[in-house]
Formats: sequence, C-alpha cells, structure tokens
Amino acid sequence: MINGLERIRCAALHEKVMSVEKAIAFIQDGAVVGLSGFGGAGEAKTVPLALADYAQNHPMKITLATGASLGNRIDGRLNDAHALARRYPYQADPTLRKAINNGEVMYIDQHLSELADNIRHKNLPKINVAVVAATAITEDGQIIPTGSCGNSANFIEMADHVIIEIDNTISPVLEGAHDIYVPKARPNREPIPLTEAGDRIGTIGIHVDPSKISAIVLNDIPDTSFKMDEADNETLAIAKHLIHFFENEVAVGRLPENLGPLQSGVGSIANAVFAGFEHSNFHDLEMYSEVLQDCTFQLIDSGKMKFASGCSMTLSDECAKRVMNNFERYKDKIVLRPQELSNNPEIIRRLGIIAINTALEFDIYGNVNSTHVTGTKMMNGIGGSGDFTRHAHLAIFVTKSIAKGGAISSVVPMVSHCDHAEHDIDVLVTEQGLADLRGLAPRERALKIIENCAHPSYKADLLNYFERACALGGQTPHVLREALSWHAQFEETGSMKSA
Amino acid sequence: MINGLERIRCAALHEKVMSVEKAIAFIQDGAVVGLSGFGGAGEAKTVPLALADYAQNHPMKITLATGASLGNRIDGRLNDAHALARRYPYQADPTLRKAINNGEVMYIDQHLSELADNIRHKNLPKINVAVVAATAITEDGQIIPTGSCGNSANFIEMADHVIIEIDNTISPVLEGAHDIYVPKARPNREPIPLTEAGDRIGTIGIHVDPSKISAIVLNDIPDTSFKMDEADNETLAIAKHLIHFFENEVAVGRLPENLGPLQSGVGSIANAVFAGFEHSNFHDLEMYSEVLQDCTFQLIDSGKMKFASGCSMTLSDECAKRVMNNFERYKDKIVLRPQELSNNPEIIRRLGIIAINTALEFDIYGNVNSTHVTGTKMMNGIGGSGDFTRHAHLAIFVTKSIAKGGAISSVVPMVSHCDHAEHDIDVLVTEQGLADLRGLAPRERALKIIENCAHPSYKADLLNYFERACALGGQTPHVLREALSWHAQFEETGSMKSA
Repeated sequence: MINGLERIRCAALHEKVMSVEKAIAFIQDGAVVGLSGFGGAGEAKTVPLALADYAQNHPMKITLATGASLGNRIDGRLNDAHALARRYPYQADPTLRKAINNGEVMYIDQHLSELADNIRHKNLPKINVAVVAATAITEDGQIIPTGSCGNSANFIEMADHVIIEIDNTISPVLEGAHDIYVPKARPNREPIPLTEAGDRIGTIGIHVDPSKISAIVLNDIPDTSFKMDEADNETLAIAKHLIHFFENEVAVGRLPENLGPLQSGVGSIANAVFAGFEHSNFHDLEMYSEVLQDCTFQLIDSGKMKFASGCSMTLSDECAKRVMNNFERYKDKIVLRPQELSNNPEIIRRLGIIAINTALEFDIYGNVNSTHVTGTKMMNGIGGSGDFTRHAHLAIFVTKSIAKGGAISSVVPMVSHCDHAEHDIDVLVTEQGLADLRGLAPRERALKIIENCAHPSYKADLLNYFERACALGGQTPHVLREALSWHAQFEETGSMKSA
Repeated sequence: MINGLERIRCAALHEKVMSVEKAIAFIQDGAVVGLSGFGGAGEAKTVPLALADYAQNHPMKITLATGASLGNRIDGRLNDAHALARRYPYQADPTLRKAINNGEVMYIDQHLSELADNIRHKNLPKINVAVVAATAITEDGQIIPTGSCGNSANFIEMADHVIIEIDNTISPVLEGAHDIYVPKARPNREPIPLTEAGDRIGTIGIHVDPSKISAIVLNDIPDTSFKMDEADNETLAIAKHLIHFFENEVAVGRLPENLGPLQSGVGSIANAVFAGFEHSNFHDLEMYSEVLQDCTFQLIDSGKMKFASGCSMTLSDECAKRVMNNFERYKDKIVLRPQELSNNPEIIRRLGIIAINTALEFDIYGNVNSTHVTGTKMMNGIGGSGDFTRHAHLAIFVTKSIAKGGAISSVVPMVSHCDHAEHDIDVLVTEQGLADLRGLAPRERALKIIENCAHPSYKADLLNYFERACALGGQTPHVLREALSWHAQFEETGSMKSA
C-alpha cells in the first residue's frame, strides 16, 4: 500500500489519488489559487513546489492567496519561477519581498481576518483551485487540517477544484485538535457563539462535497522547523517592563488575576515576554492568539497556562516531538481555529484580549508602523496586528529603541507609514521603559513616549523637535518640513543621528 | 403643577426635583462628568450651561465625557468659562477647537464605540456624575432618552451621582423609539443578539437604581435646530458616481438589490447621496448608522427606505415637526440605540454595512485623513468613521477634490495624518470620479486615484511625484523629502499649487 493511503479513510476517495504532475494540471495560467498555510506551518508543499518547477519551463502566472506566510521557501520558489502575478494577504519571504518592492509582484497586504469575507462577498476574485494540506480524511469525508487552519476551510468551500495533500509527516494525533467553524454568508450571518478562549463551536474537520475533490496527492516534505530565538538584554528588559506593568494593573484592580486572554506576535520579544510569565506569579493564563510557539507549550508544561487557542503551531523539532509524543497531555489545553475565528474582531472585543505586537517604529504621538521600512519598503505585512490592536482591551506594541547599531531610532517624530493610528494604541514598550498612553492627549503622550521609550542618544533631538512643533500649535504638533527628515537623512547618510 | 412634573411618572422621584443651582453642587472641581448628547442632539442643557455660568466666577475644571458632539454651544460655553480640563471622545465646537489646538484643553479623540468599554474596564477614569436628558421617567423608574442615546445608559450605570434633566421640549411620542442594550462586563460578555438592522434586543428605557438619582431638573431649552445643507454641483456629482457604482455592483451580482445596511456620515455630501437614492431604482433600503437626518425621513416618506437604525436624530425644525406630529407612521421604521451598539464592530461586520464617510484628504495610496488640517490642527475628531470603516463590507470615503478655491488638493502624495490606513479603504470618490481600490496593490491604487479622483489642476504634479517615487522603489513608493511638502508649502504660501 502506498504510504499515506491509510490516512484516506473515506474509501471512495482513493481513486482521486494521483501524481503531483497530473494534479497541477488543474491549475491554469491566470488562476486564483488558495493555499493552506499560516505562520510558516501547514502549507501544502508538494503541489506548489511542483508548480514552481513546471512554471520554470512553461511560463504562467497565478494569483496566490494563503492563510499567511508559508514555510519551505514556497513563496520564494514560486517567485523565482516568475509564477506570481498577485499575492495576498501576507508573506515573509526574502526574495518575494524584493520582487514586491521592485513592483514586479502586486502584493495586497490585508488584515488576516478579512480575506475570507472579502472573497466570499466578492470584493476579491473567486478562488479557482484550493490546495490544502491534510492530516487525514475521515470516513465521512472530512478534511482534517495539519499544523495550521488558515483559510483552508474557506478556500475549500469557495473553490471550483480542491486538491488535497495528505501530509505523511504530520502526526495523526493532531486529529481532534482543530475546531472548524465557517460563518454563514450575509445576510444570514449569526453571532459567533464563542464566549471563552477554550470554547469549541465547530467540527474537527472541514466538510466538503466529495465531487469537488479533483485530486489527492501524497506529501513527504515536512513543515519548516522553527528555532526559538534566544532572549537578549533588550528583549529581557522589555519583558520585565511588561510583567511589572501587568502586576501593577492587577494590584490596582484594573486587570483580572489571570490578565484575561493574551495574544502575542511571533518572535524573540514574544518569547522573552512568555519566559517572563514563567518566573512570575501569574497563573491560569490563557491565550487567544494566532501562532502557538514553543513558549506556549512551556507555559502549559509548567502549569502556568490553562488554555491556548491559535490558528497554527510553529515549533522547534524538539518541542514538536515532545508535544506529539505526549499529545494526550495537551489535547484538552489547545485548539486550532480558522483565522477568520482566531483573528475575529467580534471575538477579540468580546473576550477583552491583551494584544502584544512588535512595531517597526512608532512616533512621539503613538502612531505605529508595522510594515514599511522608511515608509516605502515592505517588510512582511500587517498580518494580524490590525485585527488584534483595533479590538483589544489593551493594545501594546513593543520594539527595541534603536536598530542598526544606533543608526536608526525606533521612536521618530512622525511614522513614515501608519498602520495603527494613535486612537488604537494603549501602551508602548522598549528596553528603556514603558509608556502607558491611556487617557492621554497627543501632547501628553509625546512627553511620556520620549521620556520612557526613546533611546538616550535620541531623546534630546526628539524633545527639541517636539518643543519647536508645539510652538507652531495643533492637537498633534509637527514641523512639516522636518517630520520625515530623520528617515530621509537615514536613506541619504545611513544614520538618523544629528550631525 | 410645575411644567414637566407629569413626565416623572415614578412618583417617588418627585422629591428629587430641585433647582439647577442646587443640582450643580453635585459636580465638584476635578470631577469626571458624563453628559448625554450625540451629533448635536439630546444633550443635557440646563445643567452644563448653569455649570458654565458658575465656573465663570468660581474657577473649577472638569473632565467632560459625552456621546459625541453637543448642541447649544455647550462645549464653547464651558470652554469660555475655562471649565474644561479634558474632553472626550468627540467635539465639533469652533471655540473649543481653538483651545484644543492651542494645547489648553486635553482632547482625547476616540472611536465612538469604545468609550463605554474603556470606562467600564478602567482604561479611563470612573464617571463621577452622569447628567442625562430624558423625555420622561416611567412608572417603574426607567429613564426614557431624548433625541439621542449616546452613552447615557453607560454613564448612568457607571456614575456615583445621576442628574436627570427632564426635557420639556421633547415630544413625548418618542417614548418607545429607543432600544437600550448594555453589554455585560467581561468576562461575562455574551454575543450581541442582533442580526438585522431592525431587531430590537433591549428595553425602551434605561434601568437605574432610583437611589443613585441625586437630582432631577427641568429643562426648557430646545435642541439645536439643523438645516439641511443644499447640494451643489460637486456633491451632486459625487452622489451620481456613487449611485452609478452601486447600480453596477448590483447588476454584476456583487451587492444585493437593496445594497444591505447603509451608514453615512453627516453633512451635505451625505444629503446629496441620499437625495440620489430618491431618484434611483433602489428600494427597501436600510440604514444602520449614527445620525438620522432629514434625508432619512424623506426616503421613508417616499417608500424607498424600509428601516433606519441610528444613535440620534438631528432634524430641521420643519422635518422634526412633521415626524413628531405623525410619529405613528415612523414608529415601526426607526430605532435609536446606544452608540456602543450603533457603532459596534461585531454588528457592523455581521450585517455587512456599506459605510460612506467624508475625508479631509486622502493620498495616492488610499490612506485617509479624517481629522487633522495639514496634519496638526484638529478639526472635529475621528467620530464613528473608524468604527464603520474598519469593519464595513464596503468602506467608502468621499470629498471634493479641491478646497479653498483650488489652493488645496484633497488628493495628496502622502496624508499629513493617517486615521484610516489603506488596508481598510475600498472606494474613494470625488466630483471627478470614483476609484474602486478593491484587490489593488498600492502602485495600482495610485494610478487609479490620480486618474479618477484628482482635480485636473493637480493631476500632472501627482503623476510626476508618483513616477519619481516609483523610480526609488518600494511597495508604497515615496520621495521622503517631498512627501509632505505640499502641506508645508500651503502653510508657507497659502497654496499647494506648484509655482
């Protein structure tokens, strides 16, 4: 028996198994393809990689929609083959990034919660082919997702053709970890019946009309392995400021003892903050977030975290092994949801989430740039930061106060690109300190941000700018001819520092 | 019997009736006061005006929270008396605006849907005194709001002292027009059970512990009267472009025949668009919006609109008279809700609202400035524009392409202040034309916005900027030294026009 066939428990579907070469024929030049994958986990691999190989010799271009970023350098391989005309809603590939910034690939950077509705209600074109990785197909034909849910259920529902990749590298124990809920199309939409991070409101798999499944291929390429970044002095200081802030909020009665559900962006700062929880007095922590990382499972192991809801898991090999080998221990403590649910404004506001995301830069009035280096060059995309920031009970952004050895100040007079307006930002943190902006007008925010968050080497220049701006007046004072001069100077001289 | 006493049908409360001079003693120096009022309708009047008179001779400062803007120049009168230390979440008073921009009053410009939660969950200080206008008090002590709901129910729930102003100028027929629903505090919050614009999910009045009512005063000052702005050639052209766009969306099957629930900002452009509906083939229209204006009732009169949900009514004297004298005709076609409901993200996303708001300016990439003139001076505030834009099925901004006789282009290289990021904007409209931005990358957006929306006298300069920016590269190309130079030049020379 072919390796993987036993995972297709709906026998009638065995006849759909075919070679990847045959399967990619369903993807025509000009097609809109919806791919599984979120945060570098759970992407379909065999099909897009074969498509990239094919496109090298047979020029074709597709529009590629995903959950979020893809592992296995799939975006890069497709881009190298010049196979991408359009891409949404998020990417994080270094070579695709270059093509985007050169204007070669049209990149539509979108809130992750919104893509499904935008396609469902025709603000974006229909999905022609859905390519979705699966752990298994159940007896009744349900597609069991892998390490991420992303937009898989939505793409399957919307597509003309569905290609399933049975992923032999995924542990079958994951079956049961997903909670698939797809909102009805308007005007028949109903309230989402989720009132706690741990609620289950859907099914363990994706229901699909079997006649829509055009092909099933078998995949043996594993997900990309993630290494947890080591904390450094700055990230540890950021974590310390945050934990101290949370402790005080609980002490004065503004936050519940377990803080309420937490969301956190991915990466070293998130890891440091979660490591900080490890050594804190907090208990019964909950996550309602996008990506579950090693640190999530460490907090579960140590008994600090009672539940974690996410859209995907990106784990180190070591952690993945531990989790899969002992899955019974975690099964009732985690759930993976479609991003339309994990990032849903209705839920985020209802639960009162504390959102912790990383800024590229923020300005003295509290506006945040998450995406564009010096206002023009796309880094990755807005991802879920807007979904969570806009609806969080507390919207927090963190960043190191300087970058490139001090040539860049992350605290600037005016952000060169604004993803999150000051209306939405409650707290800013750098290794220097924390600025609690709640209830403050812009002029008050400026003093606090400069004093608490800016690096000492930039404080005087920021204060000088602010004072001269105030002399000109306004709710949000600026010297217009200078507002972006720090960024312009950096581009011209390689440093924001005054001469 | 004192005029108005018959409106206090809960006899036990008659003993709370007192002079306004006595009532304002409950408002201490430094107090946080929550006032009824939204969009210039339904504000308490007697108490704040007496407080302004008192503060002229007895220096004191309060923090003033409201629903939104106030009529009867109350913000101006309190500001003239130097009685305002802090103000949120919205204002539209010319003299207060000056004080805000001079840095004399700290103005916290907030999304209108968020204020109640921010106070309830202690991101903002507790309300000490709620001052709320009422049409009547029922036998069981319910407070019946007036021409707006605003944050009245929330303020009453949260305050230590409640002062009720029985408004003798409000027609008693309004009793029954309100639908008061207050979400539970987290973690006990439940889904809001509203699935259609016309649903009623609450009570007709505000429930309050009678012992919290410290004073009842009688008011004979009427709401400010609103005059409907006359349409001009530009607003008519904007309306025409929009109606044509809607017709086409229905024809190609992207919108339902009645478009789905509509939200519209206040003012002349909204009036022109709604007048445009009058002469269109659309029928069974619905509103789920903030302010119901004359044009709403005209569409109900002509049978074009089947239901309108709002937070307040701001009508001309003539229209108000017609509506109140024939209220039976409208009673099952309108409802007034607290702003936490009228502007709620959960509902806006669920219903799939089409949001039409007015921009101060937008840039070639689709970022929108709703609040700050030349990036620094506050006009009014973000109001509900963020609540609706961020969650709408279609987020539309309209503006005239030029202002001040052509000295200002409303289409600029980079917005001088960003309230709504390009991620959230679907359609931009000026009298020149309409730019449908759905599914477009920033570089594509720029060409469409310049071509369709910019005024002919600025098109060449915008194109020239865009082309030079593209030569520098980036997802969102800019010439950083020039990006805000149009605004800077306007401040220096009085015109954005190139020499």
